[in-house]
Amino acid sequence: MPNSYAVIMAGGVGSRFWPRSRERTPKQLLDIVGKESMIQNTLARIEPLIAPMNTFLVTNARQRDAVVKQLPFFPKDNILVEPIGRNTAPCIALAAAWVRRIDPEGMMVVLPADHLVRDQQEFRRVLEIALQVAEESEALLTIGIQPSRPETGYGYIQFVDDGLNPYAERGVYRVKTFAEKPNVETAERFLKSGDFLWNSGMFVWKAKTILQEVQTHLPDLYASITTLASTIGTLEYTTLLEETYGLIRGISIDYGVMEKAGNVYVVKGDFGWNDVGSWDEVVNLTPTNNDGNALRGKVFVKDARNNYVEAGNALVALIGVDNLIVVVTDDAVLVCRQGHSQEVKEVVDFIRRKHMDEYL
Amino acid sequence: MPNSYAVIMAGGVGSRFWPRSRERTPKQLLDIVGKESMIQNTLARIEPLIAPMNTFLVTNARQRDAVVKQLPFFPKDNILVEPIGRNTAPCIALAAAWVRRIDPEGMMVVLPADHLVRDQQEFRRVLEIALQVAEESEALLTIGIQPSRPETGYGYIQFVDDGLNPYAERGVYRVKTFAEKPNVETAERFLKSGDFLWNSGMFVWKAKTILQEVQTHLPDLYASITTLASTIGTLEYTTLLEETYGLIRGISIDYGVMEKAGNVYVVKGDFGWNDVGSWDEVVNLTPTNNDGNALRGKVFVKDARNNYVEAGNALVALIGVDNLIVVVTDDAVLVCRQGHSQEVKEVVDFIRRKHMDEYL
Repeated sequence: MPNSYAVIMAGGVGSRFWPRSRERTPKQLLDIVGKESMIQNTLARIEPLIAPMNTFLVTNARQRDAVVKQLPFFPKDNILVEPIGRNTAPCIALAAAWVRRIDPEGMMVVLPADHLVRDQQEFRRVLEIALQVAEESEALLTIGIQPSRPETGYGYIQFVDDGLNPYAERGVYRVKTFAEKPNVETAERFLKSGDFLWNSGMFVWKAKTILQEVQTHLPDLYASITTLASTIGTLEYTTLLEETYGLIRGISIDYGVMEKAGNVYVVKGDFGWNDVGSWDEVVNLTPTNNDGNALRGKVFVKDARNNYVEAGNALVALIGVDNLIVVVTDDAVLVCRQGHSQEVKEVVDFIRRKHMDEYL
Repeated sequence: MPNSYAVIMAGGVGSRFWPRSRERTPKQLLDIVGKESMIQNTLARIEPLIAPMNTFLVTNARQRDAVVKQLPFFPKDNILVEPIGRNTAPCIALAAAWVRRIDPEGMMVVLPADHLVRDQQEFRRVLEIALQVAEESEALLTIGIQPSRPETGYGYIQFVDDGLNPYAERGVYRVKTFAEKPNVETAERFLKSGDFLWNSGMFVWKAKTILQEVQTHLPDLYASITTLASTIGTLEYTTLLEETYGLIRGISIDYGVMEKAGNVYVVKGDFGWNDVGSWDEVVNLTPTNNDGNALRGKVFVKDARNNYVEAGNALVALIGVDNLIVVVTDDAVLVCRQGHSQEVKEVVDFIRRKHMDEYL
């Protein structure tokens, strides 16, 4: 079996977790769920399958220092730095070029750095199936999550269970279509139909296969990235990296490649996955005390129920309030009614508009 | 007319304004209502009637530095320091002893440092009446406020309007009784009866008169204070002050003297008085914007109405919340439903119990 490589995408800005997530410390670097940060958990989760020396971590220039600090034992040469975030297609193409350069037949597991997985063994079992299929074929594989509710915050993947594909026995299906985040009615229809899965944003393929597809569907990106890749290991690389990212267009791998390619398959997974997309998700994932409160840090509570509090370094007192999300950092405070945390990103928009950059 | 002296009582701890009020910066030192601190406002209010050189300010050891800093032009020799708070009777007896030493016939206006007065001219007019009566007599005068609602947070004074006292023409009445903070039903009865006033905690008398009454009703206190007063200006004073306050009993002037004395009168005042006893009072006193929000500092608001926010040095974001009081300092955050701010003092009790002294 050729070598497998993991590519952890860790460039997100996570503005929905303001005030804890900041430009330099986005969601994946926070211990929002659990004691370790999400990127630490992601690495620990894949490590039994793929060693750190075969793992690339793609982050951006602003976050590199924080990443290095959090992962002191991770090989620094495997941290790929994007000068600026350009969505997932350039990130994946860049990482694929690095992998192909090391191992022309190398396979890639692409994982977002900021997701939650409860059942790690099952997670790895599903990835192993995907890696087997990727080895045998030129397939582009995604991991689709068995949906448990009509979630409107995720994209969906419609699959075809006609038994006609050669991997059907292993729970691998041909993808019929990708669907954007639906409204409630559509999400309920998706759930009922039984042939829609949540799009987890995880992918498995040969590096050369995804690069071929990038060449077909995003030829400009392919040209830029292959030119850039030819300078890996030379002094030119850093300069050309800046130039390249200054010119290339931001586009997602889903929209740029997956929706257009023909050889797309989905492996069904059911391993307690959550993309932890908002404070409300964190509230759902956090155990509470008898009053329904989830309290981190020094918190005084009186006549207060079903609140989520992160006190940071402060002493927080809640009196007579219910169903709040209260998050305190050294320079900012969020007080948000539960169910409204999708609006947190508007705080970040406001901060940008007002040029209050110290709060970004 | 003999000289008049003002005595500003500024030793309160104001635990109801946590987290802004702290042991070293209690309510009277805060700009909770308006731009100046309450003690600055109190001094400015009395100054047209009584000059700072004739004004004594009684504070406690912990707060002295902050008082001096806030009042750079106030004569430092007129700041009397209590080693520890012992309620109002010792404070007033000490100040009276200082006044009597300077001026055996001197008259005293006793004012809490942490009250709000809207109509300052009327306030001074009422005090002038009280000073006239005090000069002519051995009366103990209190200022009673015309009540406008069945307030349960104030003590009350019942007066006798029988036209039989010599000062009746000037709106001065004999006091029948002092009543503690009532329940709602009693407060409503008080309001209807027409012969109850709010107890403002302001007093006017000759220094020698109140000292005579202290001698009669609190002989131990009188003995301690007169011994102490005999050392004013000597090196012994500070040592004896510590000893004296270590031994004397804390008691209020209302309970220790006023309720027992016979020559007690009340001057009716109606000058927009408020003792600003809680964050809810502050909310009532603060103008709001079109959404009913009163916002101090950097505050982002989305779907949020009728909130009171003091952001301190932080950026505060409110999303989807109504009727909250949110107060942020560098090390603490209060999130309190409006109507519950009486419970804020329980936070301070909690802090004491847990020995988290840095938050006191």
